[in-house]
Amino acid sequence: MSTLKPDSGPSSAPSPESWTHLRLDRRMPTYWRVTFDHAPINTITATMVAELSELMDVIERDAALNVVVFDSANPEYFLAHYDIENDAGKTAALGVGPTGMPAWIDFLVRLSRAPVVSIASIRGRARGAGSEFVLACDLRFASRENTILGQFEVGIGVVPGGAPTARLARIVGRGRALEILLVADDFDGPRAEQYGYVNRLIDDDRLDDEVDAMASRLARFDHDAIARTKSYVDQVTLPADRELTGPIADFRELFARPAQQAQWARLQALGLNTDSDLERSLGRRVVETIA
Amino acid sequence: MSTLKPDSGPSSAPSPESWTHLRLDRRMPTYWRVTFDHAPINTITATMVAELSELMDVIERDAALNVVVFDSANPEYFLAHYDIENDAGKTAALGVGPTGMPAWIDFLVRLSRAPVVSIASIRGRARGAGSEFVLACDLRFASRENTILGQFEVGIGVVPGGAPTARLARIVGRGRALEILLVADDFDGPRAEQYGYVNRLIDDDRLDDEVDAMASRLARFDHDAIARTKSYVDQVTLPADRELTGPIADFRELFARPAQQAQWARLQALGLNTDSDLERSLGRRVVETIA
Amino acid sequence: MSTLKPDSGPSSAPSPESWTHLRLDRRMPTYWRVTFDHAPINTITATMVAELSELMDVIERDAALNVVVFDSANPEYFLAHYDIENDAGKTAALGVGPTGMPAWIDFLVRLSRAPVVSIASIRGRARGAGSEFVLACDLRFASRENTILGQFEVGIGVVPGGAPTARLARIVGRGRALEILLVADDFDGPRAEQYGYVNRLIDDDRLDDEVDAMASRLARFDHDAIARTKSYVDQVTLPADRELTGPIADFRELFARPAQQAQWARLQALGLNTDSDLERSLGRRVVETIA
Repeated sequence: MSTLKPDSGPSSAPSPESWTHLRLDRRMPTYWRVTFDHAPINTITATMVAELSELMDVIERDAALNVVVFDSANPEYFLAHYDIENDAGKTAALGVGPTGMPAWIDFLVRLSRAPVVSIASIRGRARGAGSEFVLACDLRFASRENTILGQFEVGIGVVPGGAPTARLARIVGRGRALEILLVADDFDGPRAEQYGYVNRLIDDDRLDDEVDAMASRLARFDHDAIARTKSYVDQVTLPADRELTGPIADFRELFARPAQQAQWARLQALGLNTDSDLERSLGRRVVETIA
Repeated sequence: MSTLKPDSGPSSAPSPESWTHLRLDRRMPTYWRVTFDHAPINTITATMVAELSELMDVIERDAALNVVVFDSANPEYFLAHYDIENDAGKTAALGVGPTGMPAWIDFLVRLSRAPVVSIASIRGRARGAGSEFVLACDLRFASRENTILGQFEVGIGVVPGGAPTARLARIVGRGRALEILLVADDFDGPRAEQYGYVNRLIDDDRLDDEVDAMASRLARFDHDAIARTKSYVDQVTLPADRELTGPIADFRELFARPAQQAQWARLQALGLNTDSDLERSLGRRVVETIA
Repeated sequence: MSTLKPDSGPSSAPSPESWTHLRLDRRMPTYWRVTFDHAPINTITATMVAELSELMDVIERDAALNVVVFDSANPEYFLAHYDIENDAGKTAALGVGPTGMPAWIDFLVRLSRAPVVSIASIRGRARGAGSEFVLACDLRFASRENTILGQFEVGIGVVPGGAPTARLARIVGRGRALEILLVADDFDGPRAEQYGYVNRLIDDDRLDDEVDAMASRLARFDHDAIARTKSYVDQVTLPADRELTGPIADFRELFARPAQQAQWARLQALGLNTDSDLERSLGRRVVETIA
């Protein structure tokens, strides 16, 4: 699509108009909204990662932007989890990003370090890489009635690759981080709020308006004040690079084992990556698929 | 006033009797109470910082002291925020303190490192530097019905200078710290407790008695046990010096800009530093004054 | 007893059958349960530490184990606190463990670093070293109606020796850690949950079943996924060795003082180490015994 647009840049330049898995709404020069829209359940694929990388290019080149809100077009799924599309080569082909880290990690790192406020407005399910995404955002607000968060990876015999190991400890403390990661079960809204997994809950019918009000407020603030204040918190609370590259290597190694490949096949047979009962209750049901 | 008292030391020695913005009540040799009393709304001025620095001199010279409780004579304002009194020279003239850091930072650092337990007994508003003060105390208890906390600085286009960026992360975690600092809005008691911004709430009519009971208990404890136990927690949780000096320099740089000077003038025209509706709702209303 | 069993190893090998203060139930190869049973109130003695050290030997030699749940045979006392048995030599004779640290610290460090999930299923009182034990576990679940936690050590004039100073900050943050350690009072279940001192409360009549369900889930997971994921969180959240050895030295120095020895004698006269009213309310009543 981008080639049809006279104002689009060279093929290497970001072209939000061509994105197929997310939509960019520039509400104001200082306030953008990004909506995940990848039917049927907002899985994260290589294509989505490529588009998110382009989004970071756009964000980093924009000196006026203050705040980006992320939401979902699907009220049941914010971001389901990663889908390798039965082809590890697709993800491998993404290579490394500007930070020198693999594309998914690179995106999370650039988002968390960007001089803008990123807000996850969570409605529906965000598990695995979907949870890693919300943990890399600066702020997390969630529907009181309709939120499920979880890191189910240990339940499929792997290490969570996007380093929630490094981020959760700085957000919820050691004890609750270990429970989220090791018990690997679903967290509903109230428990997520209790643990600090999200900043706080907002009644579902108020979520969009309240997040919009916060973003509109941030949109009026001075950019440098936001950027510098965030950078001081970053210095204290962002993981070091060395904490981020180990988990993804472990994920690859552990996932390649025959037992994990077989479990993955069983998950797919039960409806993984579709709006199935398995996906609705993945945190609880993952244990069924262990041999 | 100090010259009237035969037991007062040389002019360089601390003389609590001469203080005009705070009162020191030595309830017991091991338990002191400091009451902020600077009409009309307990702003923090160069004079108050100078008196607080003297307070630290007194505290550091006293080997018996175990606990200091800070409260306010004004039930609506614990410590409103910093007031530069339209004369940046007054604050600049305070220079640096014994730590080598600017006077306000120096005071906060000495308080947080002192071998005594500092307790903020919060009733009313504590914003900006007032919030920085409570964050530098060891323990924070707040009126359930009558507490407002906030770091509104980003709303006036500056970095919070007293390094709540460094302290909040160790108290409430990354996500909630970023919200407090960047959204820069008011937090009432229940939300402050939920976020861990205060240790916990106490019913307003029980606040004074319960804090007094805790302080009276601490007053009986062994001084070395308190001092050494605190120092071990300090090793893990206090900011490094390098985290503390950047924000105050940024504050000065950003505040000196014409846009920020103009916004400050608008705030003053609307009643800043007086018991105005603006001050009552500063976190919410600050956005009105952005050009 | 171990000499009666043909499959027991040499006298230096661990022999769980001979333990007198704890019981080991190997429910599954991947899921063990350890029950504290040292009448009358589950104090931690040199004997119990020796048995816990042997438990770590057994755990570390078992490549299949995923999860260990710790509970108590006494519903009023999970682990009361340390009992020196009027003979400091008994504890001193334990020497140092494989980490090179004194036996109690060594046990806590090995437990927290082990490649298995340790779960404290808390019913009753856990104070002092009992609280240090639960803080060294990975996960803490507690009876809603019947839990009391506390670090009363500062109330007897000493530094808590098992380094809760280092662990609490990573679990509950600076402010609440300082209150737990310095005010040194009892925390009931609801306040412990509010502060993050435990992961969360479970209704007493559901506690055993819910913890068993979590452990049974963990028992089915892949061992390497658990071990590696935990190790990444450990890198960020476990204390450095240098944070662990200071407090125990301070404990010994401060406890040896005449005033502390006299206070300890008064505590014993009031019923310390027995199921007395003093023990039931130790956090509150400790202040009565200060001269």
